[in-house]
Amino acid sequence: MRAIAVHRGESQPRLREVPRPDPGPGEVLVRTLRVGIDGTDHEVIAGSHGGFPEGESYQILGHEAVGVVAEANGTDLAEGQLVVPTVRRPPGGGSNEYFDRGEPDMAPAGAYVERGIAGAHGYMSEFFTSAPRFLVSVPASLAKTGFLVEPISNTEKALEMAYASRSTFEWSPETAFVLGNGSLGLLSLALVGQGEFERTYCLGRRSRPDPTIDIIERLGATYVDSRETPVSEVTTAHEQMDFVCEATGYARHAFETIDALAPGGVGTLLGIPSDWTFEIDGGRLHRALVLENKALVGSVNSYVPQFERATDTLADYPDWLTDAIITDVFDPAETDVVFETGDEHIKTVVEFGTR
Amino acid sequence: MRAIAVHRGESQPRLREVPRPDPGPGEVLVRTLRVGIDGTDHEVIAGSHGGFPEGESYQILGHEAVGVVAEANGTDLAEGQLVVPTVRRPPGGGSNEYFDRGEPDMAPAGAYVERGIAGAHGYMSEFFTSAPRFLVSVPASLAKTGFLVEPISNTEKALEMAYASRSTFEWSPETAFVLGNGSLGLLSLALVGQGEFERTYCLGRRSRPDPTIDIIERLGATYVDSRETPVSEVTTAHEQMDFVCEATGYARHAFETIDALAPGGVGTLLGIPSDWTFEIDGGRLHRALVLENKALVGSVNSYVPQFERATDTLADYPDWLTDAIITDVFDPAETDVVFETGDEHIKTVVEFGTR
Repeated sequence: MRAIAVHRGESQPRLREVPRPDPGPGEVLVRTLRVGIDGTDHEVIAGSHGGFPEGESYQILGHEAVGVVAEANGTDLAEGQLVVPTVRRPPGGGSNEYFDRGEPDMAPAGAYVERGIAGAHGYMSEFFTSAPRFLVSVPASLAKTGFLVEPISNTEKALEMAYASRSTFEWSPETAFVLGNGSLGLLSLALVGQGEFERTYCLGRRSRPDPTIDIIERLGATYVDSRETPVSEVTTAHEQMDFVCEATGYARHAFETIDALAPGGVGTLLGIPSDWTFEIDGGRLHRALVLENKALVGSVNSYVPQFERATDTLADYPDWLTDAIITDVFDPAETDVVFETGDEHIKTVVEFGTR
Repeated sequence: MRAIAVHRGESQPRLREVPRPDPGPGEVLVRTLRVGIDGTDHEVIAGSHGGFPEGESYQILGHEAVGVVAEANGTDLAEGQLVVPTVRRPPGGGSNEYFDRGEPDMAPAGAYVERGIAGAHGYMSEFFTSAPRFLVSVPASLAKTGFLVEPISNTEKALEMAYASRSTFEWSPETAFVLGNGSLGLLSLALVGQGEFERTYCLGRRSRPDPTIDIIERLGATYVDSRETPVSEVTTAHEQMDFVCEATGYARHAFETIDALAPGGVGTLLGIPSDWTFEIDGGRLHRALVLENKALVGSVNSYVPQFERATDTLADYPDWLTDAIITDVFDPAETDVVFETGDEHIKTVVEFGTR
């Protein structure tokens, strides 16, 4: 079958033939419909994040997928059921305490592999296999958009952790500020917009006309151009933010978030930057965290409960939004252009099949 | 009556005569027993934190106090009851939403004054007045130590916020690391040691023999000398920390805490540093927060529920501990030496009276 993979010693992924996987005992075979691409894929391709499966010369990419159960193989799943796979798996095929209690997203390095990212093949192939417990059933209406469940689920988890961190007092957030107008930023903004926030903002560094600014404004949010209004100055240019969701991977933003927060506010960090040393006014930031009861919460990955909530969230997104976010749908044969980036591409998806 | 106050334009507090306060309607008169001194008092004296009551040429110091109800003035409190006052009060004598819902510790600047710190006279005088709702009754056995309820209550709140931030998953912390061997650090270490942590550590930068190291080790904790083992290297020298409690006010520690934390760990920040610009590897720290689901939570002040828990905590502290922490008990007449600092002073207290 065809698969898109990154190869050791090569800088660009390519389409290749790989053996069609056979489902093991208790596993199902899934026929892939669509696989989304995000910043993590680009980091895997660049070799700055993740790593090859042990002993393999290539890694099949892709961790945002939607597919159809092709062979139920005696499991409880029905053939034809639309499913979205979670990302983390126990290393070595066994299990461990994090998976046993349904919290692999909280596992430390070494206690998981990540399909398509670190140590395991991903979903960017015509078929993949999985144990049913790592598959979340989604309604047939999500056949073309279901791969967005995975990125949305990451923000679901971040939001959950943010609320938990504020649960010792009466937190009534009114303002939310999403940092980043990439696909994760826009999906996060839409999720946040479904919540209790009265006013939402989204940071980018682009000029009009721009399709992401159009989406931001159609979502009822205010666009903040970081070239005119740095994160640390948003409180004077606009207002204090009760919740900040960082989805840029730009490390300065993680610390500038402290300045953007209202007293009692919380910033969740989702980006994964590389090493970068820079100056901060650490005294002022430390003092602001303390005197104003602010918090910074890092969040990575997600699991079945967040995937299930994200499924509901996605089902509530209007068609115009997913249509606007999914800018590029490629056939696997177009692998040479699939990974191109640019302001006109928001979310690129590879379509292996249709329902 | 006698009071210890800091005066505008003067660098050292002095004993002075002030009018004995009359309790207003619904207020009680409290006869002060003991008032503790902490780092915040030194910041108030230096003018780097807090501020004078409006229109006053002096501010009575002191926010850690224990006293006896001298005039119940028709309230529900009994004369002779031992009480500890909370710190924050509504500005202008009215109330606001934060006080109405019992969360003045979460109020933003402008929505509170702080007795002995910012905009209101403290408790370092023979008598003070207070509405009963700002007084926590404590058992008679705490007449000599009850002023420690206030600092302990700050860590009670910090610990509560830390646990809340980890409440979305099964957090089973084993290791705790208190940064700072001042009185707040030692009181925090003792509190943490009452909890579920199996191994506790405490950071200082002193050589043996030293009374704080003796206390740390008698509490069963491991002393970490920051001159040999910086916070960021504690994971290699000892182990990863599930919980870090920063009680130094040294801003680098706030960020080094991220390195000290185990995956899923949380650091609470209690110190109040001045502005200080320095370099950090913000990329690495941001990435560690995200990929390991770490959190930093700032916490300031506390209120009645935390004071009540701190009362129970203090009652459980062994006598040797409070005896060792309270190194200096001065008469108000000794004001000229009360504010001296040095390694031999852990907790200094001014004794205005005894029960």
